[in-house]
Amino acid sequence: MQAIDWTGHSLRLLDQTKLPATIEWVECHTYQDVAWAIRHMIVRGAPAIGASAAYGLVLAAQGCRHELSPAICQETMVKAAAELRSTRPTAVNLAWAIERMLRAGAGLTGDSLAVRLEQEANAIAMEDVEVNRAIGRFGAELVPNAARILTHCNAGALATVGYGTALGVVRAAVEQGKKVEVFADETRPYLQGSRLTTFELMQDGIPVTLITDSMAGWLMARGGVDLVIVGADRVAANGDVANKIGTYTLAVLAKEHQIPFYVACPLSTLDLSIRSGEEIIIEEREAREVTHVGGVPLAPEATRVWNPAFDVTPARLVTALITEKGLVYPPFDSKLMALR
Amino acid sequence: MQAIDWTGHSLRLLDQTKLPATIEWVECHTYQDVAWAIRHMIVRGAPAIGASAAYGLVLAAQGCRHELSPAICQETMVKAAAELRSTRPTAVNLAWAIERMLRAGAGLTGDSLAVRLEQEANAIAMEDVEVNRAIGRFGAELVPNAARILTHCNAGALATVGYGTALGVVRAAVEQGKKVEVFADETRPYLQGSRLTTFELMQDGIPVTLITDSMAGWLMARGGVDLVIVGADRVAANGDVANKIGTYTLAVLAKEHQIPFYVACPLSTLDLSIRSGEEIIIEEREAREVTHVGGVPLAPEATRVWNPAFDVTPARLVTALITEKGLVYPPFDSKLMALR
Repeated sequence: MQAIDWTGHSLRLLDQTKLPATIEWVECHTYQDVAWAIRHMIVRGAPAIGASAAYGLVLAAQGCRHELSPAICQETMVKAAAELRSTRPTAVNLAWAIERMLRAGAGLTGDSLAVRLEQEANAIAMEDVEVNRAIGRFGAELVPNAARILTHCNAGALATVGYGTALGVVRAAVEQGKKVEVFADETRPYLQGSRLTTFELMQDGIPVTLITDSMAGWLMARGGVDLVIVGADRVAANGDVANKIGTYTLAVLAKEHQIPFYVACPLSTLDLSIRSGEEIIIEEREAREVTHVGGVPLAPEATRVWNPAFDVTPARLVTALITEKGLVYPPFDSKLMALR
Repeated sequence: MQAIDWTGHSLRLLDQTKLPATIEWVECHTYQDVAWAIRHMIVRGAPAIGASAAYGLVLAAQGCRHELSPAICQETMVKAAAELRSTRPTAVNLAWAIERMLRAGAGLTGDSLAVRLEQEANAIAMEDVEVNRAIGRFGAELVPNAARILTHCNAGALATVGYGTALGVVRAAVEQGKKVEVFADETRPYLQGSRLTTFELMQDGIPVTLITDSMAGWLMARGGVDLVIVGADRVAANGDVANKIGTYTLAVLAKEHQIPFYVACPLSTLDLSIRSGEEIIIEEREAREVTHVGGVPLAPEATRVWNPAFDVTPARLVTALITEKGLVYPPFDSKLMALR
C-alpha cells in the first residue's frame, strides 16, 4: 500500500480524509497544492508529510524552470519552503526534509535545480521505505510469538512512503512467521486508528481488533496487551516523544501494567536542537474535529473545545526507541547524539 | 432538567440517543416499551434506569388491574421483573429498584397492587432527587473555589431522576457560590460526554470544555485538572467501582498525577452481595457503536471490534466515595457495610 505517488510532474496523494469509505486520489500540480493537502490532512504521518513537502519543492522548482532570473527563482524556493514548513508545526520531518532539499539545491537554478531536487526527493522517498524496513527488522526482535500489540493512531504504510514504522514492526514480525494480533485505538478525534490502521492491516490479512481510546486501560488490566508500539512526530534530545494525542495516556497505562512501551522512530524524527519535549510546539486544531464526525454534530452548538493534536510522552515512560540503526534503551541522551 | 416524566398511565422518556440535536420524548405504555427503551439507551444512567424499571412495573400492574385471576397477575409481574432486569446487566440500581418494587407489592393484586406500586415508584423517583442533593452537599466540600473538575460520561440530571450525582456535586458547588470549570470527556463510543454533559452544563450556564477521552492524560500533565468526579453503575463491598468504560483509565491517570479521584454513588449503587469488582458482569455492546456514528461508517466493513460498556476501577485508586450519607474514605469494606 502506498499513499504517495510521484508522476514526474505532479504529486498524487491518496486522500486519507476519505478512507476507508472512498479511495480517491488528489493530484497536486503546484507546491501550494501540496501545502494545502498537508494542512488539510489529505496526507498525514510525520514521514509522509516530509516526503510530500520534498516533492512540493520539486514542483516549485519545476514551476520556475524557465525563469531567466535566478533571483526570482531563488525567491520562489524560499517562499515555497516557508509555506510548506508552516503547514503543520509538530512533526519535525517536515523541517528535516525541507532543509535537506534546500541543501541539495544550493547554488543551482533553472532546469538543473529542478532535476537535482527531483533526484533528492526520490532519494528521500526511497530511503524512507528502507529505513522503515530496518526499523521493522530491529523492532521485530521485541515481538514475541503470539504477541498482542496495542498501537495508537496510524504509523503504517499510509503515514510513511511505504511499509510503516510501528506497523512496519508488526509487518516484519509477521514476515518472520510470528503470529501476532493487533489492537488498534480508534484515535479520536481524527480516527486514524479506525479509518486507516484497521484498513491497512485488514488488507494485509493481519488480525486487528478495533477499540475506542477509552478501552485501552481496561484491555491492559485484563491482561490483553503484551506490548505497545507507537510512532513519533518528534523526539527531543533527551528522548521525550511528541506523538498523536493519547500516546501519553497509553504510556502511563503501560507503566501501571508493566507492559513495554516502544516508539518506532526514524532518525529523521529526532530533533537534537531541543533538549526536551517541553520545547515542542503542540498543534491545536479546530473544534469541529471534536464536535462533528462526517458532518454529523455530536455536541451542542458553540460547545467550547480543547483540541491538541499531539502530546509529549516523557522519556522515562519509553522502554526503547526503535530506529533504523537499532534499538536505543535509556538513558537516551548520549546515545541519540551518537546516532545522528 | 428532567428526562423521566410519569403521567399516571405512561412513562415519558426524553430520548437520549437523539440529544442534543433533537428534543424528542418516547412514551412508554407497557413494561415492554420500558424494557425496549432501557435496552436501546433511550434512557441511561444507573439511577435513571432504576426509576424507569420501577415505573415499568407500575405499567405491568396497571395492565393486569382488571385481571380476575391473581395467579395470572402474579405471573405477569414475575415476567415483567425478569424482562426489565435483563435489559442491562452491569448497573445494580436496576435490580435494586425491581426488588424494592416487588417487596412493596408482595401479597397485593389487582387495583391495590397498581396503586401501591405507583406510590413506591414515585417514592423511588422523589428519593433519588433528594439523595442526589445530599450527595451534592457532601461532595461540594471537596471542591475548592476555582476548581477545574474532570468528569467522564454523564452522571448528571439526565442519568438520574434529577440533579445528578457527579454533576450534582458540581451544581451544589456552584450553588455555594464557588466558581468551577468542568472538562467533559466525550466518552466514546456512546458520546454521553459530548452529547449530554455539555448540553446539561451549558443549559445551567456552568463553564464546560469538551475533550476527547484521549486528551485527559495530557490535560492532567499540563496541570489542568484539580479533581476528577465520576458516577458509578455498581460498587462492590470492597469499594471497587464499575462505571462507564474509560473510568479506569482516568483513575490510573489521576494516581499518576496525584489528583484526587472521587466517585459519586447513591447507596442504591452499592452491591454488598459481591466482595469485589471481579464478580461484576461487564456488558459488551454491539460493534456498530464503535464503527459508526450517526449512520456514518468510521471503519472498514467487517472490522472486528471489542466494545465493553463498562470497566472496573479498583478501590485502591478511589480517593473517596461520595454517598448521600457522607464521604467514605478507604478502607471501604467495613464502612460500606455499616452504611447500608
